[in-house]
Amino acid sequence: MGTFSERLSARMEESGSLLCVGLDPAPDLVFGDETGRVRDALFEWGRQVISQTHRFVCAFKPNLAFYEARGSGGIAALERIMEYLGSEHPGIPVIGDAKRADIGTTSEAYAVFLFDRLGFDAVTLSPWLGRDALRPFLDRRERGCVILCRTSNPGADDLQALEVGGKPLWQRVARMVAEEWNSLGNCLLVIGATRPRDLRTARRLVGDMTFLVPGVGPQGGTLDGVLEAGLNPHGKGLVINSSRGVTTSSDMARAAGQMAAAINTARGNR
Amino acid sequence: MGTFSERLSARMEESGSLLCVGLDPAPDLVFGDETGRVRDALFEWGRQVISQTHRFVCAFKPNLAFYEARGSGGIAALERIMEYLGSEHPGIPVIGDAKRADIGTTSEAYAVFLFDRLGFDAVTLSPWLGRDALRPFLDRRERGCVILCRTSNPGADDLQALEVGGKPLWQRVARMVAEEWNSLGNCLLVIGATRPRDLRTARRLVGDMTFLVPGVGPQGGTLDGVLEAGLNPHGKGLVINSSRGVTTSSDMARAAGQMAAAINTARGNR
Repeated sequence: MGTFSERLSARMEESGSLLCVGLDPAPDLVFGDETGRVRDALFEWGRQVISQTHRFVCAFKPNLAFYEARGSGGIAALERIMEYLGSEHPGIPVIGDAKRADIGTTSEAYAVFLFDRLGFDAVTLSPWLGRDALRPFLDRRERGCVILCRTSNPGADDLQALEVGGKPLWQRVARMVAEEWNSLGNCLLVIGATRPRDLRTARRLVGDMTFLVPGVGPQGGTLDGVLEAGLNPHGKGLVINSSRGVTTSSDMARAAGQMAAAINTARGNR
Repeated sequence: MGTFSERLSARMEESGSLLCVGLDPAPDLVFGDETGRVRDALFEWGRQVISQTHRFVCAFKPNLAFYEARGSGGIAALERIMEYLGSEHPGIPVIGDAKRADIGTTSEAYAVFLFDRLGFDAVTLSPWLGRDALRPFLDRRERGCVILCRTSNPGADDLQALEVGGKPLWQRVARMVAEEWNSLGNCLLVIGATRPRDLRTARRLVGDMTFLVPGVGPQGGTLDGVLEAGLNPHGKGLVINSSRGVTTSSDMARAAGQMAAAINTARGNR
């Protein structure tokens, strides 16, 4: 199956797209109370989003919170969505937005859950507990480890902007990941779209590494700013996520197609 | 129902114990493959641990990783375990070891999952995304927010020991939580048992705040060191966790009773 980077790159070529669609069923979508019904209705929601948008994406990204908020029926739905993606769209990498980190055998258990049971090609991870905590993820050469580096929320500054050795902490994390944690070449970084200047700095610090970029649109990041600052010299290196902007549209295919095209227009403008 | 601190304090009085038992089914325990069977067998495992150890604990702490590693059947088992605890042992607070953090509505979805659906009295949370990311948790006055501050793993130093303003970063986090994030008085800190000196410093920095302390025993922390360094002036302020040390014993009641007694001996020695 190759590495995550190879699969992602192949899919970017095939689709001509840098768009990732977040499979995030909003909290106000109600799928009933009974476990089996939640499972079936939520799976059907995911199948609809996938069938309408898959042509336009380089990746899908379910955030686990929205499935867990529906309890065991929600997790059962996610299991089915992952099976469906694996059989219908095996060429599209799927990123599990889990933001996990724990230690020792606990971290191993999360890796089993996310990589082996659900089958994600990559997962988002928190660096707060350090490299050894992420070993069960980092050691999986064929999977992607997407490390939370510079997030798009206002409060990100509380820790990430603290000065360490004269630089903001998130820059230290970016360098640590690029120079140490990425020894198998399977790391990516989360860099929010809301701070294009930081995206530019991150690109300078870590070379060609791919960034997962949330926060375009509703959170205020602009496509031109993101692409200008974040693309690598090969015109790639960015996975640009949109969730609600696509999935709450009455015409999801059109919304995804327009977003993918807008990204490519901005790529062309560079 | 009062606040988490009040419930925890009441249970410490009632049980005379600072011991928390981690309800962590080890990865090598096999509960079958079929969802319904996993749910039933894993619930039964939890029920056994609870019925044998509840007399000796101030709290229980399931780590979600070990349930999620079993898929939707594992989450269904955890739902049942939480129902069972709520009906059979309503006086024992339950801490969900989730180490979560996300932003905006995603963080809200996790709060729904952990507080409303599963019914945890408190949860462990990562500070990496900042205060606003944890708002849906911090705003719940009656629940506890247990912030990962100084973890017990060797790699914790990668970020937590970086120098910020002349002090290790984890000390900044401890102060930030105590002085800002704890405005509703519902915050606790995770401080690992493996570094008693840091436990002493943390106690000095944050006053009476309660610490959840993992890492006694297998990870190398000693009870005398932990209690000497970590108890607050009221002889409390510590929730000392043991997972495998109790749950893999052939006589769980005896193991829990001995551990609770050893804690109290060390308390008496101060």
